[in-house]
Amino acid sequence: MRIVVALGGNALLKRGEPMTAEAQHTNVRIAALALADLARNHQIIVAHGNGPQVGLMALHAASFAPENPWPLDVLGAETEGMIGYLIEQELMNALPPGTDCATLLTRVEVDPKDPAFDQPTKPIGPVYSAEEAKLVRAEHRWSMVEEAKGGLRRVVPSPLPVAILNIAPIRLLVDAGVCVICAGGGGIPVMRGRDGKMEGIEAVIDKDRTAALLAQTLMADILLMLTDVEAVFRDWGGPDQTAIADISPDELAEISFAAGSMGPKITAAGDFVRAGGGMAGIGRLQDARAIVEGRAGTRVRIAHGASETRLSGRETVTLP
Amino acid sequence: MRIVVALGGNALLKRGEPMTAEAQHTNVRIAALALADLARNHQIIVAHGNGPQVGLMALHAASFAPENPWPLDVLGAETEGMIGYLIEQELMNALPPGTDCATLLTRVEVDPKDPAFDQPTKPIGPVYSAEEAKLVRAEHRWSMVEEAKGGLRRVVPSPLPVAILNIAPIRLLVDAGVCVICAGGGGIPVMRGRDGKMEGIEAVIDKDRTAALLAQTLMADILLMLTDVEAVFRDWGGPDQTAIADISPDELAEISFAAGSMGPKITAAGDFVRAGGGMAGIGRLQDARAIVEGRAGTRVRIAHGASETRLSGRETVTLP
Repeated sequence: MRIVVALGGNALLKRGEPMTAEAQHTNVRIAALALADLARNHQIIVAHGNGPQVGLMALHAASFAPENPWPLDVLGAETEGMIGYLIEQELMNALPPGTDCATLLTRVEVDPKDPAFDQPTKPIGPVYSAEEAKLVRAEHRWSMVEEAKGGLRRVVPSPLPVAILNIAPIRLLVDAGVCVICAGGGGIPVMRGRDGKMEGIEAVIDKDRTAALLAQTLMADILLMLTDVEAVFRDWGGPDQTAIADISPDELAEISFAAGSMGPKITAAGDFVRAGGGMAGIGRLQDARAIVEGRAGTRVRIAHGASETRLSGRETVTLP
Repeated sequence: MRIVVALGGNALLKRGEPMTAEAQHTNVRIAALALADLARNHQIIVAHGNGPQVGLMALHAASFAPENPWPLDVLGAETEGMIGYLIEQELMNALPPGTDCATLLTRVEVDPKDPAFDQPTKPIGPVYSAEEAKLVRAEHRWSMVEEAKGGLRRVVPSPLPVAILNIAPIRLLVDAGVCVICAGGGGIPVMRGRDGKMEGIEAVIDKDRTAALLAQTLMADILLMLTDVEAVFRDWGGPDQTAIADISPDELAEISFAAGSMGPKITAAGDFVRAGGGMAGIGRLQDARAIVEGRAGTRVRIAHGASETRLSGRETVTLP
């Protein structure tokens, strides 16, 4: 089966661990083992997040020249290089010799009229004091929000991915059986300018939404979103908390989830299977193969005979 | 014709200009016009340098966390992302719609027994005071050299490229007519460890030497090395300074050149044409097409009937 795997950037540079190259490398090595386990039986295309990494690259650049912050498209491209290299190297180390891998930089087009541009929501880069924030806000015209722990951070828009610009070479490689790593960080955000030319834009794209678009475009059988949560839960944190094993997108849409990183995964899962994808899986990195084989995580797919109508019950539905 | 173009990192982040994302973007836009001019009539594969950029990324990281310098393989991967993205975007903007481009991260294997590891020569990253240098030298076991302008800098080994690890997918794309950008910064330096697995290494690889290996492996017709010097000169800076228009590799090998960036270009040119390559060109970025068409720069190729013996004369040889 052809599987697009979306790997969280948080799984590679973890909260609470030191923000070092060594820590990231160790985590990539672990992730590569889980991916290789899948790749032995399936064709995988690996997309990855870059949340912590793009923040760290912004910190690096801002520490050197605070008056010259590097644009988010360029920082995103740096993270595609850094993370893509590490994944490729460790994945190839874990796979049988002779396996071909390729890591492609991926520009993803967004719509300049996307309403996300009016409402920046993604915090990024350093935490500033109230005084510093006043200065950088004035100088760079940044939107800023107060942090729960004090201080202020820049927030940037997170528009929807509209098109993967490098899809033809990606498809060529995938069809030739090459293990492709691409669309890192949801893709480098670009838009068509008034002169018709593509230009980078100050934004970040959700990697799960881009992975869904990639899976759909490549007609993948499975979209697998790997994170640090076991499954999608009903009544998360409440008395009736239950892991969902199998569910249809319509039923999933009826459940309300707290805002956070699960939201985009649920939307991406629904988008993919409604567009004809076989199954979307959500679960832990170390369960990658078990999710595909139905032994862990949450699987989202159209219920047999129920693609047009919503399921009536709210119980966990286990499909064959 | 199939042309591997090696573009200097100095042409994109220039000495004397501010080290900003904007300055680099402007230079990339200019470079892309010259490349597009070539790409209209030829198939081009673009390799690029990263000298100033890998230094800048090292400065960025060191400013944020001086105690945790980022390894050179990871910094090199970051520059492949950053520079590759900018070149791809501006090249595609300059080419007719429908042209396919792909930028591939490229790991290049070096030999851990390369004598370069015993004699680090390439300065990289920040300039340290004598006192700071003592500390970082002790902490990281770096080799350091005194700068002409004062202070000390880290020097790192520059081993020869042995193999381009991602060559199969690169060849697949090139053979399908895709305009490929790869081998940035001479490639991400990796070596085979004792356990048989590939690992990153603290080194930088000369981009012209890697471009020659790439051109040879892809059986390119031309290797074109673009820089800010008009041509190869005899008696550079002397009373008999003469630009060389056409020359054979054997004759070129007899001329002695001052150490500097021209050395690797001359070796790369000789290697490529001796291995069967049609022609190696050296000259200015803006003359890219003129060099290929014989109107500018220096062209190195085997003289007709003289592939086995050296030419006797030392005059400029103009081949048909």
